[in-house]
Amino acid sequence: MGKKLDEMTITIVGVGHIGGSFALALKENQVVGKIIGIDKKEVIEKFRDGKIFDSLSFDLESAVREADFIFLSAPVLTILRILPQIVPIMKAEAVLLDSGSTKRKIVALMKMYPKRILIGGHPMAGREKPGFGSASYSLMKNKLFALVFPTEKSLEGKSAVLALLEKIGAIPFEIDEEKHDLVVSLTSHLPYVLSLSLSSLAEEFFSKDALFKKFISSGFTGATRLSFTQREMGKGILGTNSPFIIRMIDEYTERLSSLRNLIEKGNENEIDRFLSKINMFQSELV
Amino acid sequence: MGKKLDEMTITIVGVGHIGGSFALALKENQVVGKIIGIDKKEVIEKFRDGKIFDSLSFDLESAVREADFIFLSAPVLTILRILPQIVPIMKAEAVLLDSGSTKRKIVALMKMYPKRILIGGHPMAGREKPGFGSASYSLMKNKLFALVFPTEKSLEGKSAVLALLEKIGAIPFEIDEEKHDLVVSLTSHLPYVLSLSLSSLAEEFFSKDALFKKFISSGFTGATRLSFTQREMGKGILGTNSPFIIRMIDEYTERLSSLRNLIEKGNENEIDRFLSKINMFQSELV
Repeated sequence: MGKKLDEMTITIVGVGHIGGSFALALKENQVVGKIIGIDKKEVIEKFRDGKIFDSLSFDLESAVREADFIFLSAPVLTILRILPQIVPIMKAEAVLLDSGSTKRKIVALMKMYPKRILIGGHPMAGREKPGFGSASYSLMKNKLFALVFPTEKSLEGKSAVLALLEKIGAIPFEIDEEKHDLVVSLTSHLPYVLSLSLSSLAEEFFSKDALFKKFISSGFTGATRLSFTQREMGKGILGTNSPFIIRMIDEYTERLSSLRNLIEKGNENEIDRFLSKINMFQSELV
Repeated sequence: MGKKLDEMTITIVGVGHIGGSFALALKENQVVGKIIGIDKKEVIEKFRDGKIFDSLSFDLESAVREADFIFLSAPVLTILRILPQIVPIMKAEAVLLDSGSTKRKIVALMKMYPKRILIGGHPMAGREKPGFGSASYSLMKNKLFALVFPTEKSLEGKSAVLALLEKIGAIPFEIDEEKHDLVVSLTSHLPYVLSLSLSSLAEEFFSKDALFKKFISSGFTGATRLSFTQREMGKGILGTNSPFIIRMIDEYTERLSSLRNLIEKGNENEIDRFLSKINMFQSELV
């Protein structure tokens, strides 16, 4: 990595919510020399924004060949599919950073290329609304950006990645892939699964009796919001982190069952103690 | 009810989030003649707003005696406790409307006073942030306001209640207490219970390993938001709607368990079909 950031050409593969936000942040902070955006033909064809990207195309191959830095921003299953296409045509010293929601499968794949600078990444940011339309230059600002360095060689890209994240105001955080996937199985994937199950149950009641829909409040809307995560992203999460997700579902089911018993028993003092504990947890979160 | 709305004195018992929003909406739309706010001494003493209420006090008795209309806005358990104090001192033709989260226990109590105009109500609005500070004049605007008429006598207050709700832009919706409590057990109380269980599980993991807290994203924050509902309100909900809440927990647990099996099995087509169904539900909600 002889080049300075502002001389680099960065290719962003996937210009949706995360890739688009990354591009906007790079542009806003004038971080790199040239930004190339890559996506599927149908996305590129209706893309409206000539000012952020110096070049926009669906020609993955030439954009990869030209890049000093590649940001691979796509659902996990897509990353697993296209990484083997990208690696052989990357410049020998180019750095690749991905943004996939789970890290074990991706990092295992990266380890198969010990001579390439491939780095696992995951920004702790993003909403369930997909597409460039919901991208924001400040999405990752002051947010954790998890980093996994799979190989000795990948460490050669560390200074460039850290410099780039610093420029856009994200907070780099090194972690191993196992720990990452465990932590997000609780903080991200379990809430997604819970929301899916609620939507699944509600769908059944709502279809039987239209009255239920009338009583939707902001609480219900908030609780089902995550269930509407983009389907491809959801499939990647459920498909590549199932052991930890199942463990969290089992732990959760125990807690739900205890609370059920508490409610059934109906002892006001016990319920009060439980709710007090939750309120204390709230103050710890702040 | 000989008086017109703009000649009435309304007493709002409980000037927090809901009662405060009700007062703001009445004032904004110049609905009634005089608005009296009642709350606990410690709330009234630090209350900052002389313009919304014509009178603010902790003297429940005189405020009730003076009122043509009483809006009883408090956690369910408080309503159940103070309603028997209020009824005997109300004017014979005064109308009382409550805003409690569950309706069976309150309506059963109201039925014990067949000569009084006591009406069950529940606005489908509100956030988990309590207090007058989070009140808004538009909180109930275009939102459903459930109404239960427990007795023949209560129907005498119907025209006044409908006129008043119309003025503040709420959408009145008559329902019986049984149906109300069933519907909200799915749309409000189950999301609350799920959020509580998630906070309970997260609290345990977070206290063992500080790393988890670093990975909190907007999804986690949203999923735990309802668990921080005001404790007194939560106790009222869990304590007075337990049969329906338990039924919903059991139905939910089945759905969560099916999804767990789907994830464990890992068949991509089956997961895709499930997620498609949820996405279809989303489009129905809009």
